[in-house]
Amino acid sequence: MIVIGELINASGKKVREAIINRDGEFIASLAKRQSDAGADYIDVNVATGSGETSGEVEDMKWALDVVAGTVDKPVSVDTTDYEVLKAGLEMCGEGTFINSVNAEKGRLDAFLELAREYNSPTVALPIRESIPEEVEGRLEVVDEIVKSADKSGVSRENLYFDPLALPVSVDHKSALVTLETLKRLKEYEGVKSTIGLSNVSYGLPARETLNKTFMLFLMQQGMDSVIMNPLQKGMMAAIKAGNVLLGNDPMCGAYLKAYRNGILS
Amino acid sequence: MIVIGELINASGKKVREAIINRDGEFIASLAKRQSDAGADYIDVNVATGSGETSGEVEDMKWALDVVAGTVDKPVSVDTTDYEVLKAGLEMCGEGTFINSVNAEKGRLDAFLELAREYNSPTVALPIRESIPEEVEGRLEVVDEIVKSADKSGVSRENLYFDPLALPVSVDHKSALVTLETLKRLKEYEGVKSTIGLSNVSYGLPARETLNKTFMLFLMQQGMDSVIMNPLQKGMMAAIKAGNVLLGNDPMCGAYLKAYRNGILS
Repeated sequence: MIVIGELINASGKKVREAIINRDGEFIASLAKRQSDAGADYIDVNVATGSGETSGEVEDMKWALDVVAGTVDKPVSVDTTDYEVLKAGLEMCGEGTFINSVNAEKGRLDAFLELAREYNSPTVALPIRESIPEEVEGRLEVVDEIVKSADKSGVSRENLYFDPLALPVSVDHKSALVTLETLKRLKEYEGVKSTIGLSNVSYGLPARETLNKTFMLFLMQQGMDSVIMNPLQKGMMAAIKAGNVLLGNDPMCGAYLKAYRNGILS
Repeated sequence: MIVIGELINASGKKVREAIINRDGEFIASLAKRQSDAGADYIDVNVATGSGETSGEVEDMKWALDVVAGTVDKPVSVDTTDYEVLKAGLEMCGEGTFINSVNAEKGRLDAFLELAREYNSPTVALPIRESIPEEVEGRLEVVDEIVKSADKSGVSRENLYFDPLALPVSVDHKSALVTLETLKRLKEYEGVKSTIGLSNVSYGLPARETLNKTFMLFLMQQGMDSVIMNPLQKGMMAAIKAGNVLLGNDPMCGAYLKAYRNGILS
């Protein structure tokens, strides 16, 4: 399970302020703590929407520079802006994660072209203008993105489809729709999967318990990656335990190491 | 998910001593705490093997009397001795869980006859003289037990097959074998499933993390019941969260109630 650490995100007040004030120490500390906790990629989202900075391109370059100076992990460039993505990929080079593409008109082909050029694993959201509520609707958009990617020469192994988590507090079947979408993704040979988990628990208490449980259900169905907060020990512990039980940690080496590092208890 | 609370078991030193010393308060407290934590059945195992008591039949009657005087929950009579089982069922009546039958010669038919007479949900272990290591071997024994049950007039809905958890520390595929056995049980229309979880984590640290993760994997594959320690809050929280995500708690009522009762956090 590839863990993408989600904490450097300008939608949070402290991160937004750190970007505006060029507080490199704060961003660096988030990068380091996530890396130490076991994140494989560090997601970087600098969309402050504030107008108080010199723009998202400059903000992204600054933040990526801080992260690269702090940890030895690849990053995930998290933006809806083509120029920001391009600048980020130019800085970080091949293998950088792209977060994300969707099927909105005008953007898909341009983003895929960058994904091909930088051989980037890419989060793909089965969304056009809105989020399809049912499995079939999501699969239609998956189909469209896969066809475009095939045409653009993007390798399917680099497409990480997000089966989309919606709040179970709003619709009690929404988690089942996500699980079924994940299962149906296997109709597309080679494509992979990831998920932004936390939506599922929106509006309910004890969200980590729900997020963790949902992640394990997805993991059992073959989820390849997860975008999450790696500082929540219970989440990392669940991944380690899941790997033992699913036969992915044959000598329990990773599990025992996590125990020694205090992650499991 | 039907929760069978496992704590009144003479394999534990304190419980064994409480049985030998007729310490009703200790047994009553275990019954009450498990019931309060949400156990649906209270398992009672009094096999002290000590020779210091007036025998397992008398010990079982005494313990069942204590439990019945303390909580308003049905029990699970946990014994390998026919006379003990018979005495327990006579005291507790219809609907009492039987823990357990297996395919050892001589015992199966007699136990099934009691299961029929008392309309008892019954834990069924796919074991003959030893535990089959592979799925096919377990299914062969399941087949034998189902046929005997059909002949005895035991309703299939009362058969709770345990797909058998063995330590992943010994064989890294053992959890996968359990999961596959559970899946294959669906070949027998009507039969149900339960599991004694804790074997899976034998020999490893942070056992509750492994047990909980394994239970969620089993739950997603349709496990009907679990024999466990309901005082481990994380286990009960996982069940509540699992029910929300699998669509079994449509208005999140049970989840929110558990939160208010302090079980989720």
